[in-house]
Amino acid sequence: MPCPGPAARAPALIRNGNSMAAWVYRFGPDHTDGHAGLTDELGGKGANLAEMSRLGLPVPPGFTITTRLSRYFFANGQTLPAGLETEVRDAVAAMGKITGATFGDPVNPLLLAVRSGAAISMPGMMDTILNLGLNDATVEGLARRSGDERFAYDSYRRFIEMYGDVVLGVDHGLFADLLDNFKNLNALASDTEVSAGQWRELIERFKEAIRSETGQDFPQDTNEQLWGAIGAVLRSWRNDRAESYRRLHAIPDDMGTAVTVQAMVFGNRGETSATGVAFTRNPATGTREIYGEYLPNAQGEDIVAGTRTPLRLTEKARAEFKAKDASLETAMPDAFAQLKDIFARLEAHYRDMQDVEFTIQEGKVWMLQTRSGKRSAEAALKIAVDLVGEGVISRDEAVMMVEPEALSHLLHPRIEEGVAKDVIARGLPASPGAATGEIVLTSDEAEVMRAQGRRVILVRVETSAEDINGMSASVGVLTQRGGLTSHAAVVARSMGLPCISGAGAIRIDLAQGTVRTASRTFSRGDLITIDGTTGEVLAGAVAMKQPELSPDFATLITWADTFRGLKVRANADTPRDAVQARKLGAEGIGLCRTEHMFFDASRILAMREMICAADEKGRRAALARILPMQRSDFVELFRIMEGDPVTIRLLDPPLHEFLPRHEAELGPIAEALGITLERLKTRVAELSEFNPMLGFRGCRLAIRYPEITEMQARAIFEAAIEAEKTLGRPVKPEIMIPLVAFRREFDILAGVIRNTAHTIEAQHGCRLSYQIGTMIELPRAALRARELSEGAAGAEFFSFGTNDLTQTCLGLSRDDAAPILSNYAGKGIFDRDPFVSIDEAGVGELVRIGVAQGRAGRPGLKIGICGEHGGDAHSVAFFHALGLDYVSCSPFRVPIARLAAARAAITARRRGAV
Amino acid sequence: MPCPGPAARAPALIRNGNSMAAWVYRFGPDHTDGHAGLTDELGGKGANLAEMSRLGLPVPPGFTITTRLSRYFFANGQTLPAGLETEVRDAVAAMGKITGATFGDPVNPLLLAVRSGAAISMPGMMDTILNLGLNDATVEGLARRSGDERFAYDSYRRFIEMYGDVVLGVDHGLFADLLDNFKNLNALASDTEVSAGQWRELIERFKEAIRSETGQDFPQDTNEQLWGAIGAVLRSWRNDRAESYRRLHAIPDDMGTAVTVQAMVFGNRGETSATGVAFTRNPATGTREIYGEYLPNAQGEDIVAGTRTPLRLTEKARAEFKAKDASLETAMPDAFAQLKDIFARLEAHYRDMQDVEFTIQEGKVWMLQTRSGKRSAEAALKIAVDLVGEGVISRDEAVMMVEPEALSHLLHPRIEEGVAKDVIARGLPASPGAATGEIVLTSDEAEVMRAQGRRVILVRVETSAEDINGMSASVGVLTQRGGLTSHAAVVARSMGLPCISGAGAIRIDLAQGTVRTASRTFSRGDLITIDGTTGEVLAGAVAMKQPELSPDFATLITWADTFRGLKVRANADTPRDAVQARKLGAEGIGLCRTEHMFFDASRILAMREMICAADEKGRRAALARILPMQRSDFVELFRIMEGDPVTIRLLDPPLHEFLPRHEAELGPIAEALGITLERLKTRVAELSEFNPMLGFRGCRLAIRYPEITEMQARAIFEAAIEAEKTLGRPVKPEIMIPLVAFRREFDILAGVIRNTAHTIEAQHGCRLSYQIGTMIELPRAALRARELSEGAAGAEFFSFGTNDLTQTCLGLSRDDAAPILSNYAGKGIFDRDPFVSIDEAGVGELVRIGVAQGRAGRPGLKIGICGEHGGDAHSVAFFHALGLDYVSCSPFRVPIARLAAARAAITARRRGAV
Repeated sequence: MPCPGPAARAPALIRNGNSMAAWVYRFGPDHTDGHAGLTDELGGKGANLAEMSRLGLPVPPGFTITTRLSRYFFANGQTLPAGLETEVRDAVAAMGKITGATFGDPVNPLLLAVRSGAAISMPGMMDTILNLGLNDATVEGLARRSGDERFAYDSYRRFIEMYGDVVLGVDHGLFADLLDNFKNLNALASDTEVSAGQWRELIERFKEAIRSETGQDFPQDTNEQLWGAIGAVLRSWRNDRAESYRRLHAIPDDMGTAVTVQAMVFGNRGETSATGVAFTRNPATGTREIYGEYLPNAQGEDIVAGTRTPLRLTEKARAEFKAKDASLETAMPDAFAQLKDIFARLEAHYRDMQDVEFTIQEGKVWMLQTRSGKRSAEAALKIAVDLVGEGVISRDEAVMMVEPEALSHLLHPRIEEGVAKDVIARGLPASPGAATGEIVLTSDEAEVMRAQGRRVILVRVETSAEDINGMSASVGVLTQRGGLTSHAAVVARSMGLPCISGAGAIRIDLAQGTVRTASRTFSRGDLITIDGTTGEVLAGAVAMKQPELSPDFATLITWADTFRGLKVRANADTPRDAVQARKLGAEGIGLCRTEHMFFDASRILAMREMICAADEKGRRAALARILPMQRSDFVELFRIMEGDPVTIRLLDPPLHEFLPRHEAELGPIAEALGITLERLKTRVAELSEFNPMLGFRGCRLAIRYPEITEMQARAIFEAAIEAEKTLGRPVKPEIMIPLVAFRREFDILAGVIRNTAHTIEAQHGCRLSYQIGTMIELPRAALRARELSEGAAGAEFFSFGTNDLTQTCLGLSRDDAAPILSNYAGKGIFDRDPFVSIDEAGVGELVRIGVAQGRAGRPGLKIGICGEHGGDAHSVAFFHALGLDYVSCSPFRVPIARLAAARAAITARRRGAV
Repeated sequence: MPCPGPAARAPALIRNGNSMAAWVYRFGPDHTDGHAGLTDELGGKGANLAEMSRLGLPVPPGFTITTRLSRYFFANGQTLPAGLETEVRDAVAAMGKITGATFGDPVNPLLLAVRSGAAISMPGMMDTILNLGLNDATVEGLARRSGDERFAYDSYRRFIEMYGDVVLGVDHGLFADLLDNFKNLNALASDTEVSAGQWRELIERFKEAIRSETGQDFPQDTNEQLWGAIGAVLRSWRNDRAESYRRLHAIPDDMGTAVTVQAMVFGNRGETSATGVAFTRNPATGTREIYGEYLPNAQGEDIVAGTRTPLRLTEKARAEFKAKDASLETAMPDAFAQLKDIFARLEAHYRDMQDVEFTIQEGKVWMLQTRSGKRSAEAALKIAVDLVGEGVISRDEAVMMVEPEALSHLLHPRIEEGVAKDVIARGLPASPGAATGEIVLTSDEAEVMRAQGRRVILVRVETSAEDINGMSASVGVLTQRGGLTSHAAVVARSMGLPCISGAGAIRIDLAQGTVRTASRTFSRGDLITIDGTTGEVLAGAVAMKQPELSPDFATLITWADTFRGLKVRANADTPRDAVQARKLGAEGIGLCRTEHMFFDASRILAMREMICAADEKGRRAALARILPMQRSDFVELFRIMEGDPVTIRLLDPPLHEFLPRHEAELGPIAEALGITLERLKTRVAELSEFNPMLGFRGCRLAIRYPEITEMQARAIFEAAIEAEKTLGRPVKPEIMIPLVAFRREFDILAGVIRNTAHTIEAQHGCRLSYQIGTMIELPRAALRARELSEGAAGAEFFSFGTNDLTQTCLGLSRDDAAPILSNYAGKGIFDRDPFVSIDEAGVGELVRIGVAQGRAGRPGLKIGICGEHGGDAHSVAFFHALGLDYVSCSPFRVPIARLAAARAAITARRRGAV
């Protein structure tokens, strides 16, 4: 047995045929080298085949070539190392001993399946070849031994198709066309009507097509076939789809793929044979029931391709979906019982729901794959909570089992009950949740419109790996074909996107840009709504409602709260936001953007008066009218937060945002303000800037017009006094000065705030309790953080404004970034969109410096973050590691942040424990 | 004698009357405590009075109260320490012994002058009180002992005026009005016609005015007078003018002022008395000659105020200026000889030109002040070079004597010889150089128009400390009144601004906004030209020529080159720039902005075609037409630089800069491009951005359109091959990739450049020698500099783009900063404009990190800087300290950078030697 320890990592070049270290890891009923812990070496598939073999489950014997070979292959000009051939030959011979068949033997031929498999699942990205080992001679042997000539020739033609496509590079459509023509000429309705003789005839045409396309014959030498297939699988690691998938999922290029070679078992050996895929629980709901599909008398690719509509495994499912064809449970009760037993053993062993592939050959179940199954967010929650209830896993394991991002779609709206629905089509409820968007018909369109800020629903015949980007740019996916385990369904669930698959009644016309149902036609850009929970497609938009969060949600998030160190606050500007935030568990407000209180039609006039005032007196008069509105908003926020911290940011945006954009609007406004149009135009011109992001905003406004800060401080303090009275507990506002770069900016405005506090204390005869802090949102502020926090009069808290910090650190305007970001993502310059997940190496370095410096200036300084990154799981883990006190995010992302914070703490604890 | 060592720094609070450490440092013919090294303790004036006393020069005896008192005073609620009174009383008594007079004695009264004086000169910022000790009784004694009743009462009324103004806060204008009314009523033409009796009468009115304004009597107690004056001088440290001056000149607030109390000597004791100011050399030209002015029978403030036109000191000067009144040389030959002797001793002692104040009392010269004199740039050069020639100072001392910034105006244009000049007025040639600008009449106007990017000439009756900001915002200053040592003249020379003072023929009407001469009227905004070298004021603009640099300039700069470590390159985009840069000593080009080559009318069409092309093919076609133009420019640059390094930056600005701003221009351009107006409009809209500074520019352009980089690389390499042939020496271009934030951006474009190089090497059968580097102009690039430089394929050089780095680090757009900067400067938030002198603490920290990280990635990495800061002396010193290899600046600032680099090296060496 090869040593899976250090020797397994020895460079290939110093190995040779005599060495102990091996390229090949065998698995089978009598001897298995690998195990589930070796996914880096063997890929997920190979490692779990080995693990299942060790468990004594029925796995066709075979071997896996380690991922080291993939790295060797690309590092050495796509050549193979010396010792490999012998190892493979020996392993194939060993398979022969187990199966009693011989590779290349015309009498009793051993047939092989050759599959790729990386450590991280990349579904459908790389290539697979089945039935390898068939040639003009062995096909006869297979026919004789199986007693089924039609099966043998069907298998042979499948092999030629796959081999021609994957290894020889012949367009797959060519074979499909030949088959279609042949069926038309011979009036054959489906593949199953094609006879053995007819397959033989077609095989000759296939071989001819290969000859004319490639200039060489289809190889009859089975060893040549095997090495051709191994090389093709290795090369497929670098095909465009795989590279793009890795970029999208931040999978390193040098991980490499393993190659698994396995004895074929046949689901297409007649009516007692079948192929299927299953989950050990329901991946959409999490219910503990066998869930999946099978096709009798078929091979695996028939299910994944979605070309035949598969049947249900259980009677319950068959009844629910009102399917006519028998479930596996009734059609093959014995095989179903085998599966049930296997699934129970798998769950007990892996301590998680499994996603398996199996083949039934003449009544016997063979396992071809097992892995942790992708699941909907609801299912993830239910499974995690159930497994704790079943005593299988611990609470921290449950928390680690649910991806925070998956929660996001539980928090998305669903269709309001009882509303009138204009149902135009129905399909399979492939991924729950509802969404309304404009119809797009290609992934490119989806990306373009998404970049324009539009919400789109991607409508496709079926999706493939090329559609990953388009799906991620859409708010929902609708396909004409494919089942619940089709590409569209699996990927949409993992993305938390609503999806309906197999809505067979729709017809897509790309040229016309239309989607037709029996009676109606919709065009690109028309609004539709999909309900991925029911499978209904609706015309237009409909009323949506907020989700009722399941008890499992509450249970898991409560467990999460016991693990996390980071506090989670919400960014909330209005009482409505604050109520929502409170419901979702926010422990305070981390960012209240006071300017958002002024865009209301009833208030903006006073704001405009302030902006257009000729002098300080005029500004003070307008501000005096704004004061009571602002105060009453703050009173509400303080009441809702019941004494929890509320961080209020002073006026921040460039003043021109309060003035109209279009000249036509100026006349009426000038009139309302009682100033001349000329004066208003002049003011608009004065305030217009080349780069507003880097202009007259943030504390710069208040340094110029300190009376704004005076009014805001007064509103905050008076509101605190009022709210304290009704709450009966102390209210301690945190006042935040934005866009500080220099200590003196902070000092000037902190002085205004403190003076206002003194005045109010004198007026009310009370002592105000409050803190003054600053946003850290400019590189200079992060670099000089010590200066900002030190001394009694320094900043009492920091909140990192990572949106602006990202803009300035990277020199990239968020408003202008879309085309640059998409170009850059395509070139692998960003691993992740830096406005979604914090750029740890760059922006994160400024945060790190800011934290260290800020706490050097003021030990124990309270530090939070209130950019969009506060609701992103990756970023939350980073902020946990930096020792921040809290994150603040939009209300709907509060649960995500709570879960992410818990996972970060658990991960850190586990690392520390190692 | 008090100990000037550690005890002098002991905190005031632990001192008491018995302590050895003293507040008071005496000076006089028999005993002197201080010396010139104690300017921090005694202020410049006090320290140099002590030094002159030690040298045995005639200095009226007195004492200086240390600056520690100023700090004590403000730290202790404006109170005075316990021991001070005794020390002052003893010191006054000692002065009495020397002079034979007694303070407060009605028979022979000792009179005092009380003056402020900080370690750094703040001319005219703080207050002075003369003739202190006069009251109704002592004035009689003074009259009797001097035998000049009129002198005594004139002195008394002057004292009351100053004391009323400075100590009691009575508006000075009140006294002036009383005097004017009195003269009108009594038909008196000038002050000299006022008799003793009339002064006595006026004195009563002055005292009455004080009573009615302040509710208290003018103090008759001479001790009360003294302590009132000391308190007022101390308080004047914090008056608005002084605070604003300190902010402008970055003088720390806690430096504090000393108070010097000195026995009065009288320049107003009749025709053998006088007061004067002088330079030991000509401060405008540097010529070794006595230069200055005096007023017979006058006190010091009469000269500084510019109210009487002063007379020349030397016959030569009198003849030159065709003055009628006698020079001091002929009027008081004996006193002139005393002065000449004193000046020679001062220069030998101080090893620099001195600026002195003196008083002649009845034929005897008394020195009241000496300090190093401010001088024009020409004079600074000549004096420094002459002093080396005279064996007085060394070459490094000469280099340290000339402020780099002063050179800037030597490099400004002067009026072309022989052009027609429309001379509208003449005045004194107060500060050399010529300038054309729009007329402004107030400093506020100057600042506002400057902020709009306009060039203005400040025209004032005379200037005062309040005009500092306005002067610095102007390109030249013209005053109606005042001499060569008037405020306007002194300040303009120190700023290197052209200035004409005392142009008596002009009349300024602020209300009308006009400047009139005898026959003509000019308005605000009209263009005029001033020639500060000749004193001529011209209507309109005239042809200017580049200065011929003096041999002294060449000598000093050559000496400087022997000291400096930093190389100095120029930012040059065109052959014309490059030639100019070469003339001024540039050692290569640090920044060639290739885009500047495309704004030429003949070239911009091809650029626009490239931008509007529908696809890569169209772009390549347009680029192919740009290639030969770009190549020929590069050939020229390489030839001019003769093998010295040339850094070429790839295309950087947002593409919309190449398209027209106004819609009206679009039609003809669409036609020229052969595309529809619609298409052009769409393209303009596509390229428009919210924050272009943070948008699609720099390397982001080339990542999207790599064919641009390919063309530019080809142009560079082909030009290098061609230039090498004609030069006969190797040309090694440095190709600079702008706006890099991520290593992969660099790798992608470096790959394009290297591939292009390989292609050209194959075509030409040669080996190209070149380097690829990057601008460090984003915070992320500085923070990740190690990643950018490391490995064989990393950046081979860095050039800090401190303009953009300042914009992003501070979050401040240069284009929008003007109003923010002026508001901030007024509030003391910036010490210096961060776009002029690098913000060392913030932006400088990023440079420091970038240098350390960059050299960690690639030991010995070549690093330069090519922002505007490369030509700023303060910044150059900072870059020297950080260990940069070179600075690059605009051609006209190359000599400034050379001198600044030398001074930085000398300063560092001296510090190291200590």
